Amino acid sequence: MDGNGTTKLASFRNDYSEGAHPRLLQALTQASAEQNTGYGLDRHSLRAAELIRARCGQPQAQVHFLAGGTQTNLLAISAFLRPHEAVIAVDTGHVATHETGAIEATGHKVLVAPHVEGKLTVDAVRGLLAANTSEHMVKPRLVYVSHTTELGTLYTRAELQALREVCDKCGLLLFLDGARLGCALAAAGDDLGLAEIAALTHAFYIGGTKNGALLGEALVVVEPALQADLRYLIKQRGAMLAKGMVVGCQFEALFEDALFVELGAHANAMAQRLQSGLKAAGVQMLIDSPTNQIFPVLAHAHIEALARLTAFERWAPHSDSHAVIRFVTSWATRPEAVEALIAEVARLVR
Amino acid sequence: MDGNGTTKLASFRNDYSEGAHPRLLQALTQASAEQNTGYGLDRHSLRAAELIRARCGQPQAQVHFLAGGTQTNLLAISAFLRPHEAVIAVDTGHVATHETGAIEATGHKVLVAPHVEGKLTVDAVRGLLAANTSEHMVKPRLVYVSHTTELGTLYTRAELQALREVCDKCGLLLFLDGARLGCALAAAGDDLGLAEIAALTHAFYIGGTKNGALLGEALVVVEPALQADLRYLIKQRGAMLAKGMVVGCQFEALFEDALFVELGAHANAMAQRLQSGLKAAGVQMLIDSPTNQIFPVLAHAHIEALARLTAFERWAPHSDSHAVIRFVTSWATRPEAVEALIAEVARLVR
Amino acid sequence: MDGNGTTKLASFRNDYSEGAHPRLLQALTQASAEQNTGYGLDRHSLRAAELIRARCGQPQAQVHFLAGGTQTNLLAISAFLRPHEAVIAVDTGHVATHETGAIEATGHKVLVAPHVEGKLTVDAVRGLLAANTSEHMVKPRLVYVSHTTELGTLYTRAELQALREVCDKCGLLLFLDGARLGCALAAAGDDLGLAEIAALTHAFYIGGTKNGALLGEALVVVEPALQADLRYLIKQRGAMLAKGMVVGCQFEALFEDALFVELGAHANAMAQRLQSGLKAAGVQMLIDSPTNQIFPVLAHAHIEALARLTAFERWAPHSDSHAVIRFVTSWATRPEAVEALIAEVARLVR
Amino acid sequence: MDGNGTTKLASFRNDYSEGAHPRLLQALTQASAEQNTGYGLDRHSLRAAELIRARCGQPQAQVHFLAGGTQTNLLAISAFLRPHEAVIAVDTGHVATHETGAIEATGHKVLVAPHVEGKLTVDAVRGLLAANTSEHMVKPRLVYVSHTTELGTLYTRAELQALREVCDKCGLLLFLDGARLGCALAAAGDDLGLAEIAALTHAFYIGGTKNGALLGEALVVVEPALQADLRYLIKQRGAMLAKGMVVGCQFEALFEDALFVELGAHANAMAQRLQSGLKAAGVQMLIDSPTNQIFPVLAHAHIEALARLTAFERWAPHSDSHAVIRFVTSWATRPEAVEALIAEVARLVR
Repeated sequence: MDGNGTTKLASFRNDYSEGAHPRLLQALTQASAEQNTGYGLDRHSLRAAELIRARCGQPQAQVHFLAGGTQTNLLAISAFLRPHEAVIAVDTGHVATHETGAIEATGHKVLVAPHVEGKLTVDAVRGLLAANTSEHMVKPRLVYVSHTTELGTLYTRAELQALREVCDKCGLLLFLDGARLGCALAAAGDDLGLAEIAALTHAFYIGGTKNGALLGEALVVVEPALQADLRYLIKQRGAMLAKGMVVGCQFEALFEDALFVELGAHANAMAQRLQSGLKAAGVQMLIDSPTNQIFPVLAHAHIEALARLTAFERWAPHSDSHAVIRFVTSWATRPEAVEALIAEVARLVR
Repeated sequence: MDGNGTTKLASFRNDYSEGAHPRLLQALTQASAEQNTGYGLDRHSLRAAELIRARCGQPQAQVHFLAGGTQTNLLAISAFLRPHEAVIAVDTGHVATHETGAIEATGHKVLVAPHVEGKLTVDAVRGLLAANTSEHMVKPRLVYVSHTTELGTLYTRAELQALREVCDKCGLLLFLDGARLGCALAAAGDDLGLAEIAALTHAFYIGGTKNGALLGEALVVVEPALQADLRYLIKQRGAMLAKGMVVGCQFEALFEDALFVELGAHANAMAQRLQSGLKAAGVQMLIDSPTNQIFPVLAHAHIEALARLTAFERWAPHSDSHAVIRFVTSWATRPEAVEALIAEVARLVR
Repeated sequence: MDGNGTTKLASFRNDYSEGAHPRLLQALTQASAEQNTGYGLDRHSLRAAELIRARCGQPQAQVHFLAGGTQTNLLAISAFLRPHEAVIAVDTGHVATHETGAIEATGHKVLVAPHVEGKLTVDAVRGLLAANTSEHMVKPRLVYVSHTTELGTLYTRAELQALREVCDKCGLLLFLDGARLGCALAAAGDDLGLAEIAALTHAFYIGGTKNGALLGEALVVVEPALQADLRYLIKQRGAMLAKGMVVGCQFEALFEDALFVELGAHANAMAQRLQSGLKAAGVQMLIDSPTNQIFPVLAHAHIEALARLTAFERWAPHSDSHAVIRFVTSWATRPEAVEALIAEVARLVR
Repeated sequence: MDGNGTTKLASFRNDYSEGAHPRLLQALTQASAEQNTGYGLDRHSLRAAELIRARCGQPQAQVHFLAGGTQTNLLAISAFLRPHEAVIAVDTGHVATHETGAIEATGHKVLVAPHVEGKLTVDAVRGLLAANTSEHMVKPRLVYVSHTTELGTLYTRAELQALREVCDKCGLLLFLDGARLGCALAAAGDDLGLAEIAALTHAFYIGGTKNGALLGEALVVVEPALQADLRYLIKQRGAMLAKGMVVGCQFEALFEDALFVELGAHANAMAQRLQSGLKAAGVQMLIDSPTNQIFPVLAHAHIEALARLTAFERWAPHSDSHAVIRFVTSWATRPEAVEALIAEVARLVR
C-alpha cells in the first residue's frame, strides 16, 4: 500500500468482508471429518449452547443456532407474536429499514419512533403505546433494540433496565439484536455484560457472522413462555441447517474461552484508532462511536476521491457540501490498513 | 469395528452426517482469508454461477446460492406464485410432508397425488387439475418433483418431458428439487443430464448440502419471466447470507471440474454395494433404488437389534412382523463401513 | 310452474339463492332507521350475543358476528393457532377443498383424512397424530368438523364426545363449522342441541347466511383461553363490519324466539319430502341424508334433461352411466316447487 | 331536544351510525324475495357493475362488490403486489393507522410520508423512492390515496394527474380509497368526476357503507393487467358473499340514477352548515374541510361538557388548553340535529 493511488486500500465497507477466524476454521475442519447428528442436535451445537447458557447465567435458556441476522429477527419475532401484535423499533432499526420487509412478510407491523443517537427511549415506547390504543390499530407487543446500534452506540445498563421496566409494566417483550454484540461487550465503558443482557431481555441474539464466524447467530430465548416449539418454527422458516454443526462448532470455538470478546475488542481498537486518527486530521464525526463503526463527515469531492481508493458505505447527506460516510472494521482488520487509510484521508483533507 | 456389539458401526441415517469434502474445505479456507464483496456478489459466487450456467447450457439462467433445501423450496415457490396458486406434489414429496408446512406458511396450498415409485405421473397432474376447476378452489400452478425422489428413484427423460408437456399445455410451472441431484446425475442408467433438466424445467435446484458441501443449494431459474427481483425475495425470507462466498466458493469447487458428479457416484456405489450385499444375505427391498438411499424390509426384532449397532431411519410399517428402514450413504461413506454393515445384517438375518 | 318443460322449475342449487326471512328484513328496516354504535358494539349485536350465550348455557362465551363462512373459518383458525400448527379435517371438509386455500393463505396446513359418511372419526384423528410426530412436520392442533356435514349427515352426541375426548387427551382444539347448524338442530333424531355443542367444542359458529339471513355467521368462542384480542383479529382480516347491527339485528330476530330452528325444520321437511318422493319414483340416493341436502344418483341423460329445467350441483361421478347430483332446499323453498321437481324427475326416470 | 342536558343530541361520531337509505332497503326487500345466483353473479350485481362501468367510461373495467373498506384495501393491495413490494401512503392514511395492520398481515410494508392537509404529494412519493433503492429494502410499488382524505380534504384533478405521472414514470400503481367518494364527488369545487378518477387510477373503490348502504364497497379495477383471477383472491380472503346480491342490489339503487351523489351532497351540506355555524359562534377549525367531516378546536372543558350531550371522535391534542374533535354527518343527518348541535356549542363557548 504506497498511498499513491495506484494501489487500492483494504475495504472498510462492512464487517463481513472476511471469512472466519483461523481457530473457527480449524474447529470446522475437525468437525467436518466426524459423523454428527443432523439439524443442530450434534454435540458441538449442544456444547456451544451449554457454554452460552453458562456465560449468560441462565441455565433454563434455550439457544438456537441460525444462519443470519435477518433470519434470526424474523424467526424470533414471528414466533413470539400473535398476528395482530406489532414491533416497536427506532427508525434506523435494522428490522425497520434494511430487511426488505422481512417482519411484515411474516404479518407484523413495525412501528417506528425517532432514535436518539441510534437508541430507543422509554418516552418513544410510551408514545407509540399512547398512539395505539384500540382494536382498530395494531397492538404493540415487542420492543426491538440493537446493541451496538446501527450508529455504533451502546445502551447503558440503566437505559436497558428502564426499557425492561416499561415493558414489564405494559405487557411488552424486550428483544435485543446482537449482530454486533461482540463489539458491544468489548467496548470501553460498556456496563452491560452478557449476564446483564440475558437478565434484562426476554430474548436476544449473539452475532457470529460479524464477529469471526463464516456465518451464524445464536438466538438465546431466556423467557420460558417463549420457548415452546421453536424448532418447529425454525424448520418452517427454512432456518434449520441439516449440518447444524457448521454453526455450532464455530460458536463452540468462540465461547470456550474469551475469543468472542477478544475479536470484538480488536475490531473496536481498529475503529477507535481510525476515529482518533481522522479527528487528528481534522475530520468531523457524525457521532462519537465507541465501537467498530465510525461515521466521518466529508466533503463530496473528498468522498469521491476516497471512493477510488477504498470501499465504504455512503451513509446520509449532511449539508450542501458534505455527506456522512461509514467505515467499519472487523476482527480481521490489520493495523497497517488503518494507518494507510488515515494517511490517505489526511492527505485528501489537508 | 469388530461386530461384537461393543463397537458401533458408522451411521447410515442420512447424507448430511459428515461435513465437507476436503477440496471444499480448502477452497473455503482460501476464500476466508480474502476480502470479498458481501451478499453473494463476491467473485466466487459469480464464478460458480457462471460455471453452472455453462454446464446447464442456459446462459440466461439466474443462479442463486442458498443455505438449505427447505429454504430454497419456500423461497422459489413463494416467489413464483400469486396467493391463490397452489403446488402439485406427490404425497411423499418433501414439501408435502417434511418441511413443517413451510410452503403453507408462505400462503400456498400443496395439493397431493399418490406417488408411483416416488414419482409424480402426468395422470396425477391431470387428476388434480380436473378436481380444481373454479374460484372456490385453489388454482394449481406449479408442479414440484424431486430427482432423486424420496424413494431414491429417478425420472427418465421421457417422464420429465411428459410432465413438461402437460405443464405447457395447462399453464403450469415445472420445478425440480435436486437436493440429491448429484446422486441422480451419477446414477447408472440415468438419461437426464444437467442440460436436459435445465431445458425441461422452469427452475430447479442443485443440492450441495447432501453432496459434499457444508451447506448450500444452487437455485437455477431458467425461465426469464420468473427472474425479476429474486434478490429482494431472498433477502426478505432471511435467505441472503452476508458472507455469500461461503456457499459460492464451495459450488465453485464442486463445478470447476467433475467433483460434483464424482461425489454422487461414490455415494451411489456405496449404496449399491450395500443393497446387493443385503440382497445376497436374503434381505428384501421395498424398492429397487439405483441411488444412495436404500430401503430394506426387516423383521422388527432385527431392526431393534440393528438399532443398537448403527443409526438409520425407520421408514414405514410393512406387515405385522416387518417394517421398512432406510440406509443412506454419502460422498464420505467408507467401503469398510459398508462391508461391516452388510456383515452385521447378514449375521442378524441368518 | 306447469311441469310441461316450457316453464322452468325453481332452483335447488343451494341454500343461499333467496334473501332473508321477512321477520329479519323487518328487524333490519327498523334498526336501519336508528342511530347505532358501530363495529358490532350496537345494542342489537349485544342482545343477540346475549340470547345466543343463554341458549348455549355458556355465560362466559364470546359471540362475534361475521359476514360469511369462509371468513369465519379463516378468522377463527388463524386466531387460535401458532404458525406451525395445523388443522385436521376430512377430505370433503369445506376448509379442505372449497375455500380457495383460505386457511393456507393464513399460513396453516390442513391435514386431511378420509371421511366416513362425511364425518371425521377418532381413528382418523389418531392416524394423523401418529403420522405427524416431529418438528419436521406440522403440529396438528385443531380438529375441524362440520355439522351438518358436506353430505348432509349429522354427528351424534357420542361421536362428538369421542372427538372431544381425543382432543383433550392430545392437546387439540375442537372447532365446529355450523354453516348449516339450523338444519342440524332441527333434524329428526338429532341428539346434539346448542348446549351440547357449546359444551363439547372449544369454538363453533352458527350459520345465518344459509338459514334465513341476508348474510352473517355467529362465531361462539366458548374456551376462555381463545378469547383474547379477537376483535383485533376480526378487524385485521377485514371482517369487522362498520354497521355491525346489520348482522346483529338479524341474529336477534333469529334467536329471540324459536325462528332459527323453525327455518331449519322447514328446509329439512322440504328436502325429506323431496328425498322420499324421488325414492318412491325409483331414484337411488348416494347417502341417506336427514337434512336439507340430498344426493340423487341419476343417469347422465336424465341429468342433462333435468339441467334444462332446474338448477342443481353436479356432485361426483358414480359409474359409467350415472352420476351424483345435489339438491338443496332452504327456509324459503315452497312445497309446490318440491312437488313439481318430484313430478319432473319421476317423468324423466319412468 | 331542549338543550338542558337531559335530552341527548343526535350522534355526530361517524357516517355509519345509520342504516340504509329507504330506496336501498326497498331494493333489498324486493331482491330478497327472488331466487338469485350466488357469489356475486346475480343479475343485480351484474347490472350494478355495468352501471358503474358506464359512469366511469371504462367498459373494460372489472367491478367487484365487497363488504367493507379494510377488506377492500387488503384484498386489492395483496392481489396487486408481489411479496417484496410495498405501499406508499400518508401517515394519516387509513391503511397506515386504522386497519390493525391488515396490509402487513398480508405480508406488505406500508411506507409512510407526512401528509399535507391529509394529502400525499409527489415530493413525498419521490422521497420514499429515493430512500428505498436496493434489495435490502422493500420495493415501493403502489401509491395509496384517499379521496376524501381522512381530514375531509380533496385532491384536485391536477394533483391526481401529477401523482399518476410519477407513478407511470417510476413503475408504480395508483390506488384510490373512496370510502367517502360520494362526498368527494358532491363537494363544491371538486373537479374530479368518476370518469377522471377512473382514468387516472389503476384501481379504486366506491364506498357504499358510508354513503347510504347497509354495507358494501365497489372495487373498480381499471387496469387490465391487474384483473386476472381476482375472484379467486376474493374467495380466499373470505370476502365473497354467498348472497352477493345483498350488496349488488344496493349499488344498483345507488347508481341507476343520481342517488349516490345526492346522498353525498346532503352529508356535505349538513357538515358545511355545521362548520359555518360553529365558526359564526367563534369556534376555530383545524382545517377548512369542504366535505362531511369537520374538525373543531375546543377547550378541554367544553369538550367534556359536549361529550355529555352528543357523540364525536376526539381527534388530536392541539395545545395545553385545547384539543381537536371531529364531527361527521351522513346522508341521514337531519337539519334540526345540526342546528341543535350548533346551538349547544354556541352556548358552551359563549
